[in-house]
Amino acid sequence: MTSAKPSILLVECADRAGLVHGITGVLFRLGVNVVGNHEFVDRTSQRFYMRTEFDGAVNAHTLLGELRGVLPAGADVRLSKQEPKRVVVLASKEHHCLADILVRHAFHELNAKLEAVISNHEVLEPLVRKFELPFHYLPHGTLSREVHEAEVLTLVQKYRPDYLVLAKYMRVLSPWLVRHFPARIVNIHHSFLPAFAGARPYHQAFERGVKVIGATAHFVTDELDAGPIILQQVIGVDHTHTAEDLVHSGRDVEQAVLARALKLVFEDRVFLCGNRTVIFD
Amino acid sequence: MTSAKPSILLVECADRAGLVHGITGVLFRLGVNVVGNHEFVDRTSQRFYMRTEFDGAVNAHTLLGELRGVLPAGADVRLSKQEPKRVVVLASKEHHCLADILVRHAFHELNAKLEAVISNHEVLEPLVRKFELPFHYLPHGTLSREVHEAEVLTLVQKYRPDYLVLAKYMRVLSPWLVRHFPARIVNIHHSFLPAFAGARPYHQAFERGVKVIGATAHFVTDELDAGPIILQQVIGVDHTHTAEDLVHSGRDVEQAVLARALKLVFEDRVFLCGNRTVIFD
Amino acid sequence: MTSAKPSILLVECADRAGLVHGITGVLFRLGVNVVGNHEFVDRTSQRFYMRTEFDGAVNAHTLLGELRGVLPAGADVRLSKQEPKRVVVLASKEHHCLADILVRHAFHELNAKLEAVISNHEVLEPLVRKFELPFHYLPHGTLSREVHEAEVLTLVQKYRPDYLVLAKYMRVLSPWLVRHFPARIVNIHHSFLPAFAGARPYHQAFERGVKVIGATAHFVTDELDAGPIILQQVIGVDHTHTAEDLVHSGRDVEQAVLARALKLVFEDRVFLCGNRTVIFD
Amino acid sequence: MTSAKPSILLVECADRAGLVHGITGVLFRLGVNVVGNHEFVDRTSQRFYMRTEFDGAVNAHTLLGELRGVLPAGADVRLSKQEPKRVVVLASKEHHCLADILVRHAFHELNAKLEAVISNHEVLEPLVRKFELPFHYLPHGTLSREVHEAEVLTLVQKYRPDYLVLAKYMRVLSPWLVRHFPARIVNIHHSFLPAFAGARPYHQAFERGVKVIGATAHFVTDELDAGPIILQQVIGVDHTHTAEDLVHSGRDVEQAVLARALKLVFEDRVFLCGNRTVIFD
Repeated sequence: MTSAKPSILLVECADRAGLVHGITGVLFRLGVNVVGNHEFVDRTSQRFYMRTEFDGAVNAHTLLGELRGVLPAGADVRLSKQEPKRVVVLASKEHHCLADILVRHAFHELNAKLEAVISNHEVLEPLVRKFELPFHYLPHGTLSREVHEAEVLTLVQKYRPDYLVLAKYMRVLSPWLVRHFPARIVNIHHSFLPAFAGARPYHQAFERGVKVIGATAHFVTDELDAGPIILQQVIGVDHTHTAEDLVHSGRDVEQAVLARALKLVFEDRVFLCGNRTVIFD
Repeated sequence: MTSAKPSILLVECADRAGLVHGITGVLFRLGVNVVGNHEFVDRTSQRFYMRTEFDGAVNAHTLLGELRGVLPAGADVRLSKQEPKRVVVLASKEHHCLADILVRHAFHELNAKLEAVISNHEVLEPLVRKFELPFHYLPHGTLSREVHEAEVLTLVQKYRPDYLVLAKYMRVLSPWLVRHFPARIVNIHHSFLPAFAGARPYHQAFERGVKVIGATAHFVTDELDAGPIILQQVIGVDHTHTAEDLVHSGRDVEQAVLARALKLVFEDRVFLCGNRTVIFD
Repeated sequence: MTSAKPSILLVECADRAGLVHGITGVLFRLGVNVVGNHEFVDRTSQRFYMRTEFDGAVNAHTLLGELRGVLPAGADVRLSKQEPKRVVVLASKEHHCLADILVRHAFHELNAKLEAVISNHEVLEPLVRKFELPFHYLPHGTLSREVHEAEVLTLVQKYRPDYLVLAKYMRVLSPWLVRHFPARIVNIHHSFLPAFAGARPYHQAFERGVKVIGATAHFVTDELDAGPIILQQVIGVDHTHTAEDLVHSGRDVEQAVLARALKLVFEDRVFLCGNRTVIFD
Repeated sequence: MTSAKPSILLVECADRAGLVHGITGVLFRLGVNVVGNHEFVDRTSQRFYMRTEFDGAVNAHTLLGELRGVLPAGADVRLSKQEPKRVVVLASKEHHCLADILVRHAFHELNAKLEAVISNHEVLEPLVRKFELPFHYLPHGTLSREVHEAEVLTLVQKYRPDYLVLAKYMRVLSPWLVRHFPARIVNIHHSFLPAFAGARPYHQAFERGVKVIGATAHFVTDELDAGPIILQQVIGVDHTHTAEDLVHSGRDVEQAVLARALKLVFEDRVFLCGNRTVIFD
């Protein structure tokens, strides 16, 4: 418990025979101790994914150099020391996802360092202040979308975040803004995507008379609500639930799904695989 | 256990004050013993729904007459003796839902009497024969949809079924056929509707990279996969599942959802409420 | 949405024919509008339970008097205006359940007014202070159980709480203390009771090799971990989870179950029925 | 889909550095193609478990010989061609688990060949006959447990089964009988073990007032209901469910859990790890 966290080696490359053997051989020869390993080959794309946790000191330059010798050209290799990710959260008026993140952050459960919270409303400022974090109120008011987003981007970039988290941020981000953070923006959508993409998903769900509702944590891409899905969870509902009830019941699911997805992402457990995710938990 | 099943009174009408008091008063005065009661008011439509189980003999004519005195005009009142529903099943090539229905029917778990199985393929005939039920092979072959469906309808009608069950029947029914059995055709759709309506839902789900798949039992209406939902259930999946794996995992859910939905429908526990269902279980 | 909350009528009595008719008749004659109703008869004990929400002003004395005329002797009748319950929380070192309650309380989600948090450790004081609530540190130190509990009781009673909540309070309460708050102490036990009652349930679960773990919210009675169960929820685990992992995964379930159970209790949705609960949600 | 099934290599041994590298090296040098791999190290016991699927012809003698060179002494190595397991099922009066197995067997979903069904009651004979399998009625009548079990064992052994499945067989097997089939008897217990071990678990669950019930598939050992757990699944229940209702609701879970557990066991996906199981699915 008190010891140093293991290092994490992340490999993604074209698949070929002998990769596991080759990679584990490098680690073995460098004298580090593998304490956890996941690998996966996507048959469709013939891509190989591997996440290895190891204890022991190793020279990163040496490790990456030796790995190059056993991996195909173009392999994507990363070595993570598991230092906390730098994170900026965007929120609007709803508190539940944000509050849960603030609590988990305060108790060091997320492998993240929250740099700031930015909101287009003021209502959540007192909550954020309780946790002694910077809160920035950036109202859109009469600003054009472009001008408002430029303000947001400028502010975000001051914090040099590894990830942006949209914790019920109720504005759609423009593609040009999204492209500044490829696969680095995590959103919680309040439906079981792809059902009920877009606005007012609980009201859509009520109209359709579904018997299960859910929430989806996903990476944000150019296309609204169509980015790679990280995690989804559902709960049963019945005819006694109004659309308003669905909103309330759904909040607990949203909060749980987003917290768990962030933990996975910030611990380097999520790979992209086309528009899908490979998750090693 | 060995005693007679309770009778079931089903009431649907415009809501107004005093309905529960009025209806229970009629039952009280007629000396029957209420052993279970559910009521629900849909706020949107201001419709009242009630399902009452009672023990004791009562003259149906008297009961319905007295109820008329306490209910608004246009009330829909039914008295069910819980006799088994007459059912015809349509299937294609997949056995799992059909086999489960056959077993449950053989052991009297469904409050139904299976009259026959009709299929556009021959492959399930041996299974049906094991359970000593009529099996009709109606290939579409070179027939036009209209001609084939007319054959199906003629055959179905010979059995005078209360309900049709589509147990993985892989052909879309034309609206004209559906209209012969309003709210009396139950289908199992192999996705969590409204996600992935239409063909090959598991392959759609795989492409979208969802982390949860499901199945939906619903009434069939004119509009494909858009009828009132009776029941939905899901299971988690991950990146290791191919589209083919999703098909296999999904079968257990389809089978479970359809069986449970049929039990609810055949026990008169499902009301229609616009395009939604009210379920008293 | 903005209107006054409905009043709630709670009735428990010996079952007999005509109770629903009688009670709804009283409400009808007094001119109030029933907007929700649940009733249940426990066959074993022949007890009748009913919870009715109604809009409209009514004289409580008149209502209870008229009800007496239609109910059997000894009926337990309560009229609740849904004012927030007064609550004292006891906690120890773990923050997750307490933090979740504090957030929900701050945003008025629980129909409760938190009066104070009492703990046998100091570690959670900063968290409680963020939410501007009284925090009392009552260490047991070298005190006997009796003396420590007497201190706790004295302090608790100053707040005249309707309910005590044990939010991971890691000390067993003596029966004499419990008897001061019959059916008014809610505990979260970190297992799927009755499996793994007592200490270190996650370690017990790990040793047994279970594939599902859970949490149980229950009323506290004289007998350890044997009180009436309000709510239970589970999550799947597998061989890769250490006992320590189970502790961590379990926390999210504990937090969710306790929050939901408190909401039910504080909204007068939970009846006791022997050592079981009747829940109208 | 139409190609030969992959071979499966199963390794269990004391853990040490370089095992994955060594084993994958042997497979690489023998020119077979690894198409799936799972490994796990149990920290408590320091045991290493690995299951590798590979395509390609290999001489078993050569493979096992070479593996010996890279594995510690005492390693348990098996090579499975995935031929269907020989299975005898024991049942009593309840049909649901047996029927589900019969259907799945008939449609080749279980990687098993059912040799026979043995029962201490006659009632399930017609069901088994439908599927054209031997049914043996071995009533215990006035026989002592010892004599009855000796008859059962004699009959079972004639079929030389790889596995025995207890599909709601309502008699406890004596330790001497169990020892003939170590880790080769799979039972379905109708509760969420370790809660409600022993007789009438649903009635115990009802008395305790639980809000979730479940079923457990496990290997049978000397100690009643205490063998290694393979799979568990649960469903929610509420105060409206009688003990009898729990029995009925539970059946669907039992059936689903047993079917899934058998699939895992018969595909060599389950390792024993002390009294726990390691499952590679």
